Amino acid sequence: MQNVTPLQLETEVSYTKDGLVAVIAQDVKTKTVLMMAWMNKEALSITLKTKDVTYYSRSRQKLWRKGETSGHTQKLIEAFIDCDGDTLLLLVEQIGAACHTGAPHCFFRAIKD
Amino acid sequence: MQNVTPLQLETEVSYTKDGLVAVIAQDVKTKTVLMMAWMNKEALSITLKTKDVTYYSRSRQKLWRKGETSGHTQKLIEAFIDCDGDTLLLLVEQIGAACHTGAPHCFFRAIKD
Repeated sequence: MQNVTPLQLETEVSYTKDGLVAVIAQDVKTKTVLMMAWMNKEALSITLKTKDVTYYSRSRQKLWRKGETSGHTQKLIEAFIDCDGDTLLLLVEQIGAACHTGAPHCFFRAIKD
Repeated sequence: MQNVTPLQLETEVSYTKDGLVAVIAQDVKTKTVLMMAWMNKEALSITLKTKDVTYYSRSRQKLWRKGETSGHTQKLIEAFIDCDGDTLLLLVEQIGAACHTGAPHCFFRAIKD
């Protein structure tokens, strides 16, 4: 395992042309993949500083502190950046449901014949 | 858990304007998140039919059967689609290293002060 400091992220994160980076949230205890969302530079900075996971809502075009209305917050425990810098993996403590539908996570539909 | 058939995916997958959907690969045994990549409609169809996980390489702009040169293939065990259809989660059997760097997975850099 290597370390990247928050300062080094300035050059290590490869943002899309819209200024976003993909983020996978995984439950630190169960290892369940909870959701995939996006952050901009500000959301990432806030998340690392406060440990309150904060995304960028592409539909609402604004910062979105996870659980700000539902109370279903995510506390950041550990963060990782992938080999080419375009995806982050966050290990989180999830309070309540991760999915806006009320499901524990967003991947509740199996692809099956 | 709900089921979505491959046929229903025609309307359930929300592709980007470039015709891609985000895909998270997770090791079915260890629950390690291995990588994030992209599929187009053809890659998804091939993956579901053959169980050989096949992505779409954005840099090379062509289909990319995982492990086609390295031998580090991914066998699809289970597939899920998220609540809003823009991300897939695949549980896979990973042969060898998932990351092109030779690391077991792509998230080997921790973000730390």
